[in-house]
Amino acid sequence: MQTVDTIFINAVVLTMDEELKQFSPGAVAVSGDSVAGVGSVEDVLKEFSAAETIDCRGRVLMPGLVNAHTHVPMTLLRGLADDLRLDVWLQGYVWPVEREFVTPEFVRLGTLLGCAELIRSGVTTFNDMYFYEDDIAAATAEAGLRAVCGQSILKFPTPDAASYEDAMDKAREFIKKWKGHPLIVPAVAPHAPYTTTPEILREAAELAVEFDVPLHTHLAETSFEVETMRDENGVPVIPYVRKHGLLEAKVIAAHCVHVDMGEIRTMQHAGTGIAHNPSSNLKLASGFAPVVKMLETGVNVGIGTDGSASNNDLDMFEEVRLAALIAKAVTNDPTSLPASQALLMATRLGAQALHIGHLTGSLRPGYRADLILVDLSPVHNAPSFKRSPENVYAQIVYAAKSTDVTDVMVNGQWLMRERELLTVRENELLAEAAELARRVDAFLSAREGSVLSKLIALGGSSEEESFEVQVKARIAELEPIIDALMQNDIDIVYERHYRQHDVYFFFEDETEGLLRYREDDYIESAKSVPVKTRARLTLIGQKGPEEYENRTWLSRSRYLAPATNSLRFYREYFKPKTEITIEKERLRWLIKYKETDFFVNLDRVLTPALGNFLEIKSRTWSRKDAEQKAHLLDELIELLGAASGATVTKDYIELAENH
Amino acid sequence: MQTVDTIFINAVVLTMDEELKQFSPGAVAVSGDSVAGVGSVEDVLKEFSAAETIDCRGRVLMPGLVNAHTHVPMTLLRGLADDLRLDVWLQGYVWPVEREFVTPEFVRLGTLLGCAELIRSGVTTFNDMYFYEDDIAAATAEAGLRAVCGQSILKFPTPDAASYEDAMDKAREFIKKWKGHPLIVPAVAPHAPYTTTPEILREAAELAVEFDVPLHTHLAETSFEVETMRDENGVPVIPYVRKHGLLEAKVIAAHCVHVDMGEIRTMQHAGTGIAHNPSSNLKLASGFAPVVKMLETGVNVGIGTDGSASNNDLDMFEEVRLAALIAKAVTNDPTSLPASQALLMATRLGAQALHIGHLTGSLRPGYRADLILVDLSPVHNAPSFKRSPENVYAQIVYAAKSTDVTDVMVNGQWLMRERELLTVRENELLAEAAELARRVDAFLSAREGSVLSKLIALGGSSEEESFEVQVKARIAELEPIIDALMQNDIDIVYERHYRQHDVYFFFEDETEGLLRYREDDYIESAKSVPVKTRARLTLIGQKGPEEYENRTWLSRSRYLAPATNSLRFYREYFKPKTEITIEKERLRWLIKYKETDFFVNLDRVLTPALGNFLEIKSRTWSRKDAEQKAHLLDELIELLGAASGATVTKDYIELAENH
Repeated sequence: MQTVDTIFINAVVLTMDEELKQFSPGAVAVSGDSVAGVGSVEDVLKEFSAAETIDCRGRVLMPGLVNAHTHVPMTLLRGLADDLRLDVWLQGYVWPVEREFVTPEFVRLGTLLGCAELIRSGVTTFNDMYFYEDDIAAATAEAGLRAVCGQSILKFPTPDAASYEDAMDKAREFIKKWKGHPLIVPAVAPHAPYTTTPEILREAAELAVEFDVPLHTHLAETSFEVETMRDENGVPVIPYVRKHGLLEAKVIAAHCVHVDMGEIRTMQHAGTGIAHNPSSNLKLASGFAPVVKMLETGVNVGIGTDGSASNNDLDMFEEVRLAALIAKAVTNDPTSLPASQALLMATRLGAQALHIGHLTGSLRPGYRADLILVDLSPVHNAPSFKRSPENVYAQIVYAAKSTDVTDVMVNGQWLMRERELLTVRENELLAEAAELARRVDAFLSAREGSVLSKLIALGGSSEEESFEVQVKARIAELEPIIDALMQNDIDIVYERHYRQHDVYFFFEDETEGLLRYREDDYIESAKSVPVKTRARLTLIGQKGPEEYENRTWLSRSRYLAPATNSLRFYREYFKPKTEITIEKERLRWLIKYKETDFFVNLDRVLTPALGNFLEIKSRTWSRKDAEQKAHLLDELIELLGAASGATVTKDYIELAENH
Repeated sequence: MQTVDTIFINAVVLTMDEELKQFSPGAVAVSGDSVAGVGSVEDVLKEFSAAETIDCRGRVLMPGLVNAHTHVPMTLLRGLADDLRLDVWLQGYVWPVEREFVTPEFVRLGTLLGCAELIRSGVTTFNDMYFYEDDIAAATAEAGLRAVCGQSILKFPTPDAASYEDAMDKAREFIKKWKGHPLIVPAVAPHAPYTTTPEILREAAELAVEFDVPLHTHLAETSFEVETMRDENGVPVIPYVRKHGLLEAKVIAAHCVHVDMGEIRTMQHAGTGIAHNPSSNLKLASGFAPVVKMLETGVNVGIGTDGSASNNDLDMFEEVRLAALIAKAVTNDPTSLPASQALLMATRLGAQALHIGHLTGSLRPGYRADLILVDLSPVHNAPSFKRSPENVYAQIVYAAKSTDVTDVMVNGQWLMRERELLTVRENELLAEAAELARRVDAFLSAREGSVLSKLIALGGSSEEESFEVQVKARIAELEPIIDALMQNDIDIVYERHYRQHDVYFFFEDETEGLLRYREDDYIESAKSVPVKTRARLTLIGQKGPEEYENRTWLSRSRYLAPATNSLRFYREYFKPKTEITIEKERLRWLIKYKETDFFVNLDRVLTPALGNFLEIKSRTWSRKDAEQKAHLLDELIELLGAASGATVTKDYIELAENH
């Protein structure tokens, strides 16, 4: 008889092995870091004896769950901002906060907090991708969980790397340091095709192959990603990454929402593992991954929570249930993805997707002792039908909750017993997380407090405050003005023709000023179709010009930035109280008059139909300069024959409001 | 200062009122069965004093959740059978078990068990529909929950009514008895358009209007229901029920998965409440209800779990999260159904959908004290961002779990304090439920143990055991046999022409016999297109005929039943090990020969291509009768000129297997 450390008896044992063997009442013997035996109570007790025997009556003993894709430090950003479009959420909230807060201390705290939640909910292995992955690996090992840890590589500067070469060096050092650790499998994580380059993909794959470690990435998460890929490279995502050598590595591909049958076969052929993230794909409206097809094709598909910021938790019980439910509605077939298969995705198939199926994910002699106990006694699990082997899978998948997990062992070490965490100090973590949340709230509140701060938080180049002195006159016809411009006193530097679409955002607090989103359609003289469009954001002073000087006036542009996102994005990000749209055709000249530059605009205001206007403007920087230019403006408007009582001291916004 | 019973202080108070007012730290004063005051701690303590003050630091105080559609006694059938098609699940498992087990004692136990789960998960009001609703109402009132209880009416006999008239009388008595109860709102529940008649719909609506009580029904749950409705009545479901007066009542319509904009507007106009059941609709692959459109149109849409048999729990936290997630993926817009709106559906909008929005669903002075405390301290809720009023809704909807509910009060009465149930004896219920599950398992196992029992469990008319004596011969041409039939010794009673499609199911245990699914296409003599198809199931003896008598043989048909379901249904229900398909053209005559009836079949076996055969058969009931008929069969086969050494003593199955 073999002496082992621990024998679990009288459990409903789910091995999740190739034959989905169950033993009820069953037993599991654990010796050191591994499973020594699995079988009926009688058989196991015949073969093994142990100092500690644990009676698991009324409980299921099964492999710990495998969370196949997450960003565990983002647990600290849970509930930061929700129900937003991906771009607003990322660019408006997540990235600014990450730029400000992500440090080794942040990822350590987030990892430990995440590990506490993962252990409580029965996860024994997770697959991570974030920044400062060395600190994540260290915190994970301290908490005692098994993880594949991927050091991120992007083409942009990140919190932990100034360039992609830096990130690649960091990944190499990281892999060297952790390779062979009993709990941590190091990996390289080129973030996604759209945030990397072909060189990064190839180098990352070569690095992974060199050290025989997994490669973790995001592939085909949104239809936008796939459409962009098709537009720019003429192929969908999987052929693209294959072409650049990515699939040579042991890839773990998160999402794969928008892949076709050919791409699924490619991945199957390459041995790529897929991490399906149902909550995240729903919450961000990414779509429905073709999970049933993937499984039918023989791909190892695991289930992941994604980061807590887009889920908003790390609860694999919820995720497994959701995977099973969604598959049925999507295939219009309630027999799709039955409970046993869904649970398999969260255990053995998940471990296989992470390329560590030989270590964990099922209970078999020689495999690591990564196991959990699930209490069936809570009322939401009652009653227990036992007619078919399927009954208990359905009970775990459709009825049981993560809070039914009472005990967790990883690598033969206890991490939780009777719901008490043994390796992390939960209360300290909660207090530190609360303090961090207060700081993040303060940072965002300060930013949210002003439109200017929100604009600056978006990043990108910008101009600071500037002033213009101007005069404006209502005119009947454009031609006399154009003729008048062609006189000797005036030098024409250039002429442009635009269609301008302006949307003005008004805010609750009027002192914030107005934000103008302008699209300029530049029209070549000979044609009337726009050849180029550019979009800009301008934060301007409060409604109306600020100062008057005779018929000329001074206006202030507080901030100017190229608008790289859509009007819709800015609308959702800035949340204006009201909007006004003004569309006009603009003939624009840069002229020199008495050594001074002026812009002359001849505008036909179409929406609303305000009529035709002449505007003459010049940048200014001092009171004295403004006075001189005001004088020249007076002369110019006389010269152009538009001074006869028709000048207006209202800007188009006011005119539109009164229209 | 007003003296009240209880004041809750220092909570995050979510009123879920029209303005979605929040107070943090907030307070709620409860007096008798009602809320006396809601506001900031300071304001409430200025106005009220109480014997008991409860400090709710770190907890959310909000209206109890409203489960807008369930069949609460079905909690006892949780996990009975899963991942099956609706027809297999209902006809194969749920209905046979209900026929056998549903009694007043069953519904009482199921209701109390369900109430225990509902209370634990923060539900204070539910909307029910089942049988013996009087017993459900009594058990619910005993548990202290608020409920709309609907007595079911179907056009078929049910466990509690032999006819629809009985059910209607029962409903009237039920309503009279419970009308005015402080917790129970009685209702009438015509089950669904396809299980009722226009008369039932009209009478039920009139009953509901007469007593001013709600009417609870299932509408447009599946696309099959809508297609059938269109085929049979030329309109979709909502116009049909409207035509029959249903919408005159205060309707609560469960599901409404397949409704168009016109139907949504009709329901909005009629003041119909809708119960959205996301888990059930996914699990049964019913589809995605157009919830966002319903809400935009102004319909009161609540959220329900449906029965535990199709969910598999009563967890409204899961349901709210799912409603919010699914809506985003379906509309392809992550801003759809934000957390606050999803939570509103589970509180105030749900109560309004049940037509009791003036009593419960929000915390306002004068409303019933139906409230819960939710603990935010578990690690899966950390950290708490507080920048925006939306943060706490997102925390409750996307991160919190039903197990975070610590305290529940309904109608001013405590049902749970610090997770201890006060009105139901959970352990006794669990023991009784376990015993019931054992009996159900035994019943189903006995049935599953034999194909015959499974066939009988499907119900419907049937024939018992019968024997046939027969002779069979391989023939070259059909015409000589047909000519030979037309002689004086033989009277032709009738002639038929069929195409027969037979599928034989073989089972693991060969002693079970074979099950044949046969579709007969009846072909009128003058045409070759089938004019009528009928399908039958026949359980026949073990493979091969059982006895031989010279060249004639005896076969046994153990059981015959009309096949009202599809081949696919029977395949999934009976789970055969293997199948054989045989298709043939059959010319069939009923003849009289020497005062005795015989069937003569001339078969062209097409799949597999076995060739042409003559069969002559007769029913028999005794050894002596069989011997006499065997003698006549010998004569007949000679008369028809098919006796010359070509007789076969194998049935088509054996010939097909050897083919």
